[in-house]
Amino acid sequence: MITVALDAMGADGGPEPVVEGALQLIGEDVPIRIVLVGDRGSIEQVLRSERYDQDRLRVEHASAAVRMTDKPAEALDRDPDCSVLRAARLVRDGEADALVSAGNTGAVILAAARTFERLPGVRRVGLAAVYPTAQKHGPHRDPFALMLDVGATLNCSADDLVAFAVMGSAYSRIVSSIERPRVGLLSNGAEPTKGTPAIVEAHGRLAELDSVEFVGNVEGVDIPRGTVDVIVCEGFVGNIVLKMLEGVSEVAKDLARAALHHKLWWKLGMGLLSTGIKQVRTLTDWQQYGGAPIVGFDHLVIKAHGRSNARAIRNALKVAAKAVDNDIAEQIRSGLD
Amino acid sequence: MITVALDAMGADGGPEPVVEGALQLIGEDVPIRIVLVGDRGSIEQVLRSERYDQDRLRVEHASAAVRMTDKPAEALDRDPDCSVLRAARLVRDGEADALVSAGNTGAVILAAARTFERLPGVRRVGLAAVYPTAQKHGPHRDPFALMLDVGATLNCSADDLVAFAVMGSAYSRIVSSIERPRVGLLSNGAEPTKGTPAIVEAHGRLAELDSVEFVGNVEGVDIPRGTVDVIVCEGFVGNIVLKMLEGVSEVAKDLARAALHHKLWWKLGMGLLSTGIKQVRTLTDWQQYGGAPIVGFDHLVIKAHGRSNARAIRNALKVAAKAVDNDIAEQIRSGLD
Repeated sequence: MITVALDAMGADGGPEPVVEGALQLIGEDVPIRIVLVGDRGSIEQVLRSERYDQDRLRVEHASAAVRMTDKPAEALDRDPDCSVLRAARLVRDGEADALVSAGNTGAVILAAARTFERLPGVRRVGLAAVYPTAQKHGPHRDPFALMLDVGATLNCSADDLVAFAVMGSAYSRIVSSIERPRVGLLSNGAEPTKGTPAIVEAHGRLAELDSVEFVGNVEGVDIPRGTVDVIVCEGFVGNIVLKMLEGVSEVAKDLARAALHHKLWWKLGMGLLSTGIKQVRTLTDWQQYGGAPIVGFDHLVIKAHGRSNARAIRNALKVAAKAVDNDIAEQIRSGLD
Repeated sequence: MITVALDAMGADGGPEPVVEGALQLIGEDVPIRIVLVGDRGSIEQVLRSERYDQDRLRVEHASAAVRMTDKPAEALDRDPDCSVLRAARLVRDGEADALVSAGNTGAVILAAARTFERLPGVRRVGLAAVYPTAQKHGPHRDPFALMLDVGATLNCSADDLVAFAVMGSAYSRIVSSIERPRVGLLSNGAEPTKGTPAIVEAHGRLAELDSVEFVGNVEGVDIPRGTVDVIVCEGFVGNIVLKMLEGVSEVAKDLARAALHHKLWWKLGMGLLSTGIKQVRTLTDWQQYGGAPIVGFDHLVIKAHGRSNARAIRNALKVAAKAVDNDIAEQIRSGLD
């Protein structure tokens, strides 16, 4: 049975949605054990009124927590017993198989960097994001794709981009059950000569790599379309793209809300359209994806969104279990060889 | 009276929408002369059935044209008498005050580079784009903002970014009548230390520049929001952002179209919502903006969208006349001092 160390403290909503997400999954027929890491008092307050299998859920006390507004390095230096570091140590020491956190992204990356080893051949780690697309992906027709790096490594060498392609491909293969995920390099044109020197070099090397189904360069227009299963880019560009997608989704919601407050006819129209709007909402509902991996370490790290509700946490845990169950570390290792 | 040299040949729709856009503006009470540059036979075929003031519209024959699929350098080398080069020469020789083209973007930039001088202090030219935003801008409450560079200069030095900020600011001041346009540097965080070395250096220098209303770094989420009037970024990132906006707009249209074909209730709902949808369409209607400048040359160049219809061409011509009338070259020159 797989054990996940779940940082209970970091999320915007405090420990409550995190603990509830763990309880949801424990209540299902999924072979998983969860260690809730954080302030025992706060966690047990949520657990108190619930019934659950105590063999599969336990609490590990940590005396401190990193806040969203903390500077990662300062926070980890100040509190070596903070929940995210303690959860990472459980994984390093073999008491758990994966780390899941909805906390401060920088602190999660740094905690992993200070506790785990990087995989052989990995110079820099990558933060992936799962984002909604128009096209569906894989046998489950997932309405989302993977993009990396979105902020862990601002400037990437060709080596970094190739490693991200291999690792993103392995993750997508397992989580979306796609036999050979289609991987694209984000650039300013489809031709192999387009892009920065690092992109051009990575293009040439990926084209010769059998372990990755490399389709060539993709462009900005391919991001919302979802032309490929995995988009590889450097962290600076990925960060801007990801935040822009959040902005677009936010603007669309504001427009819909303004319409609702506007006119009776609009309200009627919106009511009639509700099925359609629900479908669009499904498209932009990141909670169903749960979380995305930080790739490049010798242990699995899943970063859930800071605003995660219980369902998002449950899904992040489930994704972590699936990835460990399919031995993602080994799949990445063999892809990098 | 201002004279614009209009490349009649480059657009996706051939000379017809271009010539019709010129006729539209000539029919209005705007003090402008237009020289239509291109194949005389094709242009006169569109003009034949129309009445117009022949003092304000004339045809200049060019024996060739660059196609959208042509490689810019090859096409210009092959046909020194192509319409875009001939139109640029009219501007250089003082027979016209600005160049407007809806043709192959790379060819327009290259034709300008081979014909015009760069302004003193400008190392690399910038291609700007006008894009739709949620927030309104300036006294006319324009629903769009300016972004540059979007592809002319893939990798920018701090000097380039500062020059783009000055030039974009001057253009926005004139075209949107904003006294001090708010300018932001696109980065992966708001703090002055965030971003590539070029961005960090440009940030420091813009903060000390009186001629630009620099608000600091902006993030991806600020692009669709429209937090600032002018966004400055390097061409690689701008290209991806711009194409991504096109992709988002395309996906939204597809979803709406799919809904229309779907169900009677949806059709009814869509009908009731039509006013609202029209408002959203206005937001993403680039045709009203006409075109965007290529900045850094000693003459004004406006690039209209390849898919321009007559109204978009009319608006591009009007924007060109307004910019020349307000002496944009001089405003940029004094800003760069």
